[in-house]
Amino acid sequence: MGRLRFVNSAPLGFFDSGVGGLTVVRAVQDLLPNEDILYLGDTARLPYGSKSPEAIRRFAQEDARFLVDRGVKAIVVACNTATAHALPLLRESFDLPVIGVIEAGVESALRDPAVERVGIIATRGTIRSHAYQHALALKRTGLIIHAQEAPLLVPFVEEDWIDHPAAELVLKTYLEPLVEKGIDTLMLSCTHYPLLIPVLRRLLPESVRLVDSATTCAEHLKRELVRLDMLNSQKGEGGLEIHLTDLSEEFENLARRFLRKPSGRIQRAVLA
Amino acid sequence: MGRLRFVNSAPLGFFDSGVGGLTVVRAVQDLLPNEDILYLGDTARLPYGSKSPEAIRRFAQEDARFLVDRGVKAIVVACNTATAHALPLLRESFDLPVIGVIEAGVESALRDPAVERVGIIATRGTIRSHAYQHALALKRTGLIIHAQEAPLLVPFVEEDWIDHPAAELVLKTYLEPLVEKGIDTLMLSCTHYPLLIPVLRRLLPESVRLVDSATTCAEHLKRELVRLDMLNSQKGEGGLEIHLTDLSEEFENLARRFLRKPSGRIQRAVLA
Repeated sequence: MGRLRFVNSAPLGFFDSGVGGLTVVRAVQDLLPNEDILYLGDTARLPYGSKSPEAIRRFAQEDARFLVDRGVKAIVVACNTATAHALPLLRESFDLPVIGVIEAGVESALRDPAVERVGIIATRGTIRSHAYQHALALKRTGLIIHAQEAPLLVPFVEEDWIDHPAAELVLKTYLEPLVEKGIDTLMLSCTHYPLLIPVLRRLLPESVRLVDSATTCAEHLKRELVRLDMLNSQKGEGGLEIHLTDLSEEFENLARRFLRKPSGRIQRAVLA
Repeated sequence: MGRLRFVNSAPLGFFDSGVGGLTVVRAVQDLLPNEDILYLGDTARLPYGSKSPEAIRRFAQEDARFLVDRGVKAIVVACNTATAHALPLLRESFDLPVIGVIEAGVESALRDPAVERVGIIATRGTIRSHAYQHALALKRTGLIIHAQEAPLLVPFVEEDWIDHPAAELVLKTYLEPLVEKGIDTLMLSCTHYPLLIPVLRRLLPESVRLVDSATTCAEHLKRELVRLDMLNSQKGEGGLEIHLTDLSEEFENLARRFLRKPSGRIQRAVLA
């Protein structure tokens, strides 16, 4: 089994290119409030979405190594681009459960058997990896899939310009081809996008269902921990420790926005 | 002197966080066509504009080391954020001329004695360093300076969405406070911004003079090389060698856009 040496009281390890993955942490804190969480954001090298698959795989391995060295019981890749390019490699490299955001999102998107036309918005790296398109097509034949690179959304979310008229124009440009093709489901395949849900609801036909990486990943993680009998049995509220490879006031403020609560002390991480 | 060991036929070394600094290279190729150029873009860790001063200084030293190890005769910091945070450190660390973009821009902005109100647009990192504000205030007392962080411009330029209506809305939001304050000069203090000049000309009053980092830095570099008697005396056209810390089709296409001509072979750089 090999599983026994992972003590259930050990923290869950999360990593992302920056602080966007904290939307996943927030969803996990809601579902699994007594788990301890160790979060690593690679803010020194963010974003991953525009970089090469080789670079992303190297970064993801260094990020995961940091978490494993600190004794986490499982790894959550809280970044769509890193999941898209590095998940198989991470599963080969580390002898503990590695959960990505893609499988969870795809499962959730296809839970409704009536789904026929799925739209995906994500970073360029995620879309070009074809990871979502493959996963969807494998699970349901005959599905119509429309993938849309949306590289300007992360900068708008990070600037907190979500309600700026320019953000609406950018979103309309990205969404128009998807709406024209009559999608019934839109996958928000970047951990920054949950913050866009109110604007997306306003711009999209009411019938379009939104599937976001954060909540679907949290639900998937819970199912996996139950299945593997790895839930933390402590009664108290779990702690959250945040490590960033580059620290700045900017990143700390952004972390608080993604987490929607005080984040506690944030530490600088040095990767091996 | 120590200068004699730098052979005039050695290449000029340029570095930037990415490929934006190629606007400076292009301007230098126009002014100094027979110089060889070695360019390093730290695409694996871009952008620098949102990162901490400590991270930027560390990155800049590694970038400069790469160039020095390859025998360049001078270093051009073709990045405003890196100039703002790391120029003094680089000058201390390396025994060869190190040229930044700020001094050159400030000199050019103040060449006209009638200048009274200067606006600056740049990345958050450059503006918060106060490097431009300090340099301007030191050179001319009584000058009125308005600095505007413009973090969304780089993403729009990189996406080639310069003519998208959203880009115009973003620019108007950034420019409005500067125009209201009656600036007579606008410093484009990011090496990506020369590509925005046509849109800026359309949005700004005709009387506002634009000062861009690329041409002013090239002129400054030429003056410095003449002063130090370091011009390359070869007759033929100089070569250009581009090294990027992360290679992708995306970055190669972007490099061609900034350079406005074929870039030749682009190599992957591994920093020490």
